[in-house]
Amino acid sequence: MDTEQIFSFRVFATDGAARQGEITTAHGVIRTPAFMPVGTQAAIKGVHLPTVRAAGADIVLANTYHLMLRPGAERIARLGGLHRFMNWPYPIITDSGGFQVMSLADLRKLDQNGVTFRSHIDGALVVLTPERAIEVQNLLGSDIVMQLDECLKLPASRAEIERAMRLSIGWAERCKRAFVGAAPGRALYGIVQGGDDIELRIASARALVDIGFPGYAIGGLAVGEPQEVMLKIVEEVAPALAADRPRYLMGVGTPENLLEAVARGIDMFDCVMPTRDGRHGRAFTRFGPINLRNARHAEDPRPLDEDSSCEAARIYSRAYLHHLMRADEMLGAMLLSEINLAYYQHLMGGIRSALAGRRFAEFRAATHEAWARGDIPVLTS
Amino acid sequence: MDTEQIFSFRVFATDGAARQGEITTAHGVIRTPAFMPVGTQAAIKGVHLPTVRAAGADIVLANTYHLMLRPGAERIARLGGLHRFMNWPYPIITDSGGFQVMSLADLRKLDQNGVTFRSHIDGALVVLTPERAIEVQNLLGSDIVMQLDECLKLPASRAEIERAMRLSIGWAERCKRAFVGAAPGRALYGIVQGGDDIELRIASARALVDIGFPGYAIGGLAVGEPQEVMLKIVEEVAPALAADRPRYLMGVGTPENLLEAVARGIDMFDCVMPTRDGRHGRAFTRFGPINLRNARHAEDPRPLDEDSSCEAARIYSRAYLHHLMRADEMLGAMLLSEINLAYYQHLMGGIRSALAGRRFAEFRAATHEAWARGDIPVLTS
Repeated sequence: MDTEQIFSFRVFATDGAARQGEITTAHGVIRTPAFMPVGTQAAIKGVHLPTVRAAGADIVLANTYHLMLRPGAERIARLGGLHRFMNWPYPIITDSGGFQVMSLADLRKLDQNGVTFRSHIDGALVVLTPERAIEVQNLLGSDIVMQLDECLKLPASRAEIERAMRLSIGWAERCKRAFVGAAPGRALYGIVQGGDDIELRIASARALVDIGFPGYAIGGLAVGEPQEVMLKIVEEVAPALAADRPRYLMGVGTPENLLEAVARGIDMFDCVMPTRDGRHGRAFTRFGPINLRNARHAEDPRPLDEDSSCEAARIYSRAYLHHLMRADEMLGAMLLSEINLAYYQHLMGGIRSALAGRRFAEFRAATHEAWARGDIPVLTS
Repeated sequence: MDTEQIFSFRVFATDGAARQGEITTAHGVIRTPAFMPVGTQAAIKGVHLPTVRAAGADIVLANTYHLMLRPGAERIARLGGLHRFMNWPYPIITDSGGFQVMSLADLRKLDQNGVTFRSHIDGALVVLTPERAIEVQNLLGSDIVMQLDECLKLPASRAEIERAMRLSIGWAERCKRAFVGAAPGRALYGIVQGGDDIELRIASARALVDIGFPGYAIGGLAVGEPQEVMLKIVEEVAPALAADRPRYLMGVGTPENLLEAVARGIDMFDCVMPTRDGRHGRAFTRFGPINLRNARHAEDPRPLDEDSSCEAARIYSRAYLHHLMRADEMLGAMLLSEINLAYYQHLMGGIRSALAGRRFAEFRAATHEAWARGDIPVLTS
C-alpha cells in the first residue's frame, strides 16, 4: 500500500442530493455511500474480520475512548498500530471519544481545555483534550480521525446546546492544528453539533467549513429524537457542507435511515445495529426486520432468504436459527451478526449501483416497498 | 452418501495396545483414534461447523438430553434429522442423556423402567427409558447411538456402584432390542460402568461383550478421580472389550489424557475442554496449555504458534488475543476455541501418523517432552 497516497474524495454520480463516489486513503479505497461496521474494541462482535471484508466492508470503525483505556494507544502503537493489531490492512476510522466520555465514563470535569473523567473499566482518572484525542488516533494510525467534540444529552436548553457547539468549534480548530504533519493519506473530520436546533446546526457547519476539513460528520443525532427530526436536520445541514468533501452521519442507523440519509446527501455511516440486534435474534433482510426468536420460525425449514448474498442466510433453516437463539448458543449471535452485516453491505451496494445508473428514485421506492410488504408468508403445513 | 453402507471398524496398525484405523458409517469415515468436538445443542460453541470440519474433525457429538428438551427430537425429525438441521453431512454421535439427567435435571425417580425428571429448561416432567433413548436418537438420525445408562455421582458404596452397573447392563439389553431394524450404517454402543472398582468394571465389560455391540464406551470417568485411577481403569478394561470393535472413552479429556488413553487402546474421545477452556482464555498448544489472560502476553507481538496448522494461531499476536480476552470480546472466545479444536485434531493426526508408521512410542515421548518444556520464553525488550 502506498502510504504517500493522498486522501481524496471523488464523486462519480449524483441523483438529487445523493452522490456515489469513492474515498481514497493510504490503506485503500472506500466506495461511497459506505456503511462502516463497528469494532469498538478492535473487534467486530461475533464476526471474523475476513468475513466482514468478504461481506463488502471497505472500512471499519474503532473506538478511541475504549482503546485508549484498554489496551492503551501507546501499547497499540508499540505493537505496530491498529491495522496490524486487528489484522485489518484496509481503512480504519476512529471516533474521538467525546460521545463515550458522556455516555460511559464518570465525568469529573469539562472545561475549555478538555474533559477529565474516570475510566469505566478501572476508575483511573483520564484527561482527554483535543490534542490528546489527535495524539491517540495518530498512535492508533487511523486513516480517518475524528475531532474531539462535546456530545450533550438531550433535551438541553438552546443556550446549553449553543455553548457545547461553540466549544466543539474551538476544539475543531485545536484538533486541526494538532493534526498538522500527519501523513497525506490520512484525514481529520470536523463534527457538526447543535442538537435539534437547525439554526445552530447551520452555524456549526459553516464555522467548520470556514476552518476547512477534508471531510465532515454530523454528530449528536440518532440519540432518541424522532426520525423526521433527524432527517430534517440532515436535509438542512448537508447542503451547508462542502459539496466536494465526504459527509458522515455518525451512529446511524436502521436500513431505512441509511437509504433516506443517502437521499439527503450523506456518504458515510456507522452503527452497532447489525451486530447488536443480531445478538438479540433480529435479522435485517430485504423483507424488513425479522425476529428469529419468534415462535412462528420454530419449525420453518426454509432459509432466511434464499436469494441472499450471505451463505448463512441461504444454508441454515429459520428453525435452526430460531433454536440457536432460544438455546442461547453463541453460533446464533455469530450467524445473525454476519447475516446483518452482509445485508447492510448488500443494501449499500444496491444504493451505489442505483446511483451510478441514475435510477436511485426507483431503487429507493422499490426497497421501501419490499420492506413494507414484509416477510414471506409463514409456511402452513 | 450410500445409506446402505454397513457400519464397520478396521484396524490398520497397532503399536502395543494402541491402534490406528477407521470407522465407516452411513455419513462417512471416522479416522481413529478420533477426537469428537462437542456440539451439545446442535452447535459447537463459538466455532462455525465448516471451520470444525476444516480443522480435521470427522465426527461431532450432540446431546440427546438437551435436544429432546429443546427443540425436541420429533421436531428435528420433521425438519429432516440432525444432519440437515445442523448442516453437518458427516458422522454424528449422540450420547444417551443418562449423564445429563444426573448432572442437570431435577431427578424425580429412577427405577428399573427408566428415569423421570424435570427439564432444567422449563420444569416439564420427562420420562426417559432405554426404549425412549433409542427412539430419540433414531429421530435425530445419529450415526452412533449410545445406550441409556445410570451415571452415579462418586464416591458411592460398592453395593451402590454394582446396583447401577447391573441396571445399566439390563438397559443395554433393552436398548439393543429397541435398536433392531436400524439402518446398517448406524451403530449402537454399550457403555461400561462400575465406578472406580476394577472388578465391577471388568464384569460390566464382559457382560456387554456377551450381549454384543458394534462398539463399546467406557463411561463414568473423568468426573474428578485422579488421572492415574482413570488410566488404570482404561488399561484394565480395554483388553476385556472386543479387539475388533472401537473403544470410546467418554468425556476425556486433556491432550495428555488423550495420548495416554490411546496408548491403552482407546479409539474415540469427546470433551468440551477445547471450547470451554478456549472461552476462558486457555489455549492448548504443542508447548502445553497457555493462559492468554496472563499479563505476560499483553505486549507480545508474536503469534501463539507460528507453526500451527490453524491460521488464527499464526496471524494474530498474543497481545491481540490477550486484549480480546481481557475486553471480553466474543472474538477472543471464537479464536481460542478454534485454535484449541485445531490443536486437538492436529494431535490426533500426529497420533494416527505415528501409529501408522509404528513410531508411536517416540511420538508419545516427544510430545510429552515438548509439553514439559513449556511455552517459548517471553520476549524481553
